[in-house]
Amino acid sequence: MSKEKPSIPKGTRDFGPAIVVKRNYIFGVIKRTFEKYGYLPLETPAMEQLSVLTGKYGDEGDQLIFKVLNSGDFLSKTKPEDIEEGSKHLTRKISEKALRYDLTVPFARFVVMNRNEITFPFKRYQIQPVWRADRPQKGRYREFYQCDADVVGTNSLLCEAEIVQMIDEVLTSLELKDFTIKINHRGILAGIAEAIGEKGREGDICVAIDKLDKIGQEGVRKELLERGISEQAVNKLEPLYSLSGSNEEILDQLQSILGDTEEGQRGLKDLREVWQYLEQLGSYALSTQNPSGQPRLMLDVTLARGLSYYTGCIFEVKVNNVSMGSISGGGRYDNLTGMFGMPGVSGVGFSFGVDRIYDVLEELELFPTSSQVGTKVLMVQFDKESELYSLPLLQKLRDAGIATELYPEAAKLKKQMSYADQKNIPFVLLIGSEEMKSGKLKLRDMQNGEQDELYIDDIIAQLKA
Amino acid sequence: MSKEKPSIPKGTRDFGPAIVVKRNYIFGVIKRTFEKYGYLPLETPAMEQLSVLTGKYGDEGDQLIFKVLNSGDFLSKTKPEDIEEGSKHLTRKISEKALRYDLTVPFARFVVMNRNEITFPFKRYQIQPVWRADRPQKGRYREFYQCDADVVGTNSLLCEAEIVQMIDEVLTSLELKDFTIKINHRGILAGIAEAIGEKGREGDICVAIDKLDKIGQEGVRKELLERGISEQAVNKLEPLYSLSGSNEEILDQLQSILGDTEEGQRGLKDLREVWQYLEQLGSYALSTQNPSGQPRLMLDVTLARGLSYYTGCIFEVKVNNVSMGSISGGGRYDNLTGMFGMPGVSGVGFSFGVDRIYDVLEELELFPTSSQVGTKVLMVQFDKESELYSLPLLQKLRDAGIATELYPEAAKLKKQMSYADQKNIPFVLLIGSEEMKSGKLKLRDMQNGEQDELYIDDIIAQLKA
Repeated sequence: MSKEKPSIPKGTRDFGPAIVVKRNYIFGVIKRTFEKYGYLPLETPAMEQLSVLTGKYGDEGDQLIFKVLNSGDFLSKTKPEDIEEGSKHLTRKISEKALRYDLTVPFARFVVMNRNEITFPFKRYQIQPVWRADRPQKGRYREFYQCDADVVGTNSLLCEAEIVQMIDEVLTSLELKDFTIKINHRGILAGIAEAIGEKGREGDICVAIDKLDKIGQEGVRKELLERGISEQAVNKLEPLYSLSGSNEEILDQLQSILGDTEEGQRGLKDLREVWQYLEQLGSYALSTQNPSGQPRLMLDVTLARGLSYYTGCIFEVKVNNVSMGSISGGGRYDNLTGMFGMPGVSGVGFSFGVDRIYDVLEELELFPTSSQVGTKVLMVQFDKESELYSLPLLQKLRDAGIATELYPEAAKLKKQMSYADQKNIPFVLLIGSEEMKSGKLKLRDMQNGEQDELYIDDIIAQLKA
Repeated sequence: MSKEKPSIPKGTRDFGPAIVVKRNYIFGVIKRTFEKYGYLPLETPAMEQLSVLTGKYGDEGDQLIFKVLNSGDFLSKTKPEDIEEGSKHLTRKISEKALRYDLTVPFARFVVMNRNEITFPFKRYQIQPVWRADRPQKGRYREFYQCDADVVGTNSLLCEAEIVQMIDEVLTSLELKDFTIKINHRGILAGIAEAIGEKGREGDICVAIDKLDKIGQEGVRKELLERGISEQAVNKLEPLYSLSGSNEEILDQLQSILGDTEEGQRGLKDLREVWQYLEQLGSYALSTQNPSGQPRLMLDVTLARGLSYYTGCIFEVKVNNVSMGSISGGGRYDNLTGMFGMPGVSGVGFSFGVDRIYDVLEELELFPTSSQVGTKVLMVQFDKESELYSLPLLQKLRDAGIATELYPEAAKLKKQMSYADQKNIPFVLLIGSEEMKSGKLKLRDMQNGEQDELYIDDIIAQLKA
């Protein structure tokens, strides 16, 4: 047995009790919301066939997939030339399985494998860890949770409207008050490309525009020109960065700019329909203004996201006045299951970044106190006699549903009190010889130090109140 | 992109919504019970350093650990002779990480790494998947969940008594009525070995006795003799297989058999103390008799479990009249963290086998109906007009906390009803032109087919009742 100082792999984390409880609070809010909208949970294995994952995330993504070594004598199936050809080639010979890289590809794989049993439209949510061999850095981990909700098998834009509603509901339930849900549409982006005379070049345009926050208008201009977008087109494009007014006014301006392009028309029509749904739903995201005076839901024509993937509406959510990237995002895709030979299944989905939401809630001190408590009462043990006297009371408290511990040894009082302190236990019950005689027990409130002498039934009533 | 028919790795499973909901019901009962007893959640990464896991599970176990291939050009750090020496040697050169094999070693690793921050006694529970490269077969998977609870840093036998209580409470909460909690003690087994003249041979004796159920008394006799236990000793041992009477009577019989052995004394003293705790707690496990007339908690001197590991009390739980192995087990260990150079930390822990509990509840039809429901109401969509009319009502239902879906398209009624059916949605709301006129909506109970015409507020009141 090794006796070296143990460690955990770079980019992974242990979550101790206090953190798990807070994370579960976030997961709980997200799950309840998903379920209220008819999404049901799916869980897929941590390991997928390597062939299922390969080629779905681009060359760079393929590199970042954690591969699992075949068990047993994996070399027995290789030839000398497999080794000579290098790591990349050898990987395919000695590894057949890999760790899940996201929840989208496993979802597509599940839908295709179970196409005959699934009732469409199929609404599922999935909250599970994923693994990426990225270089670890602040806020970027090699194991992290994704929280996805997707519906496949319908083109209805009601789904898009409901995604706005779910985002708004989750973040509002988490007590966040200043956030922006940005929305755009792939058709708008394609329409813009056409309108500025660069039809079909929306891919290059988006990659550049996506950096507007980081490198500014001049930087984007430089990149656009480098990517071969004409100067004339760039000049036409730039005014769009600062389209202003209400969402309605922006839609009207876009109408006049993209009115003639087929894709632009499609985007505008879809967005108007999403707006109509939201109005009928009485959406707070439409009616609420952030402290800055901007509407919570904002049409942002510079929102790009991963274009290769999305085909309709796209979303991204930012908490304002906090230095943190987007905490949620998603969009519509028309051919997710096509990668497994099942074409024509349209869907729309989005996901929450739980690690980022956690950091935001921590920074804004928004975790409720109740999400930090485990045990409610610690019974102090003075000696064998007090221990035996305490046991039926311990049982009584637990039977009443009150999380209770009896300190398992007659340790020094100071040690027992510090245990309660460390574990954030709000009440301590002290039962010495006098208390055993009278049946009136000392209940100490650890927050304010106040002490009451009460019968057990009154203690239970008070703690349950 | 590959277009082959996708599959999942052997021995792994997808859990669709209906199954996840049922599994979560089991996890929920277990979590609530653990927390009521002061255990708090811990989560560790799926990947551990390979060096942390190696050597902890025996040679066979080491083989069954899933190793993760180093990312990047993993061959660059190997020499030709590393490859010539074969798979086992090469593994150490191209793999530094591995998938968690159980929850016990990661727990020990966590305790050692955080020894200065942890308040002892440290009570943690952990519910996470583990991975083993076992040959898959019925009921044995390569990815499965373990549910462990352990307390380290105390010798108090109150912990053992509380484990009996937690097992009893979890299984009773799951509506199981006929199960046996077997208890034994490492000292009893050592004392028996000494008393029959084979001091120190309890390891061999236990490996053989452990097979009593499978190969019978004659088979065990043969194995004992093969393992070098004397015939005289075996003759003395066999009467112990059928010790009968109440637990108290068995303890008394053991007293006279093992009374002179140090280890036997230790075992008997510990067990009597556990019994005293349980009596004071008013334990149902003590007072309840199974339909067969046997007590729920049974001292069983033939209970062996993994002896290399445990040093005090050991537990195992079987559901009676169901063909299924043990669904829970555990015991006390005196040196878990010793493997990482931190000696002298005694602990006791146990775990539930969720897959087996799932199968038992399924066989006995004990899953509550409520654990099978997601969406409560499906609103049918007839046309655009009914859709727009329905939207504010949809929002109203959700605001009331009722999980509701509006079918996202005006599909044929039959298709929409079959969607409700497949998804087990208990109520369907039909809103056609007449309903829009009167405001009285048709609420159909999908179970009995009954239909009511009600205003939305009355529907909400009824569904929330």
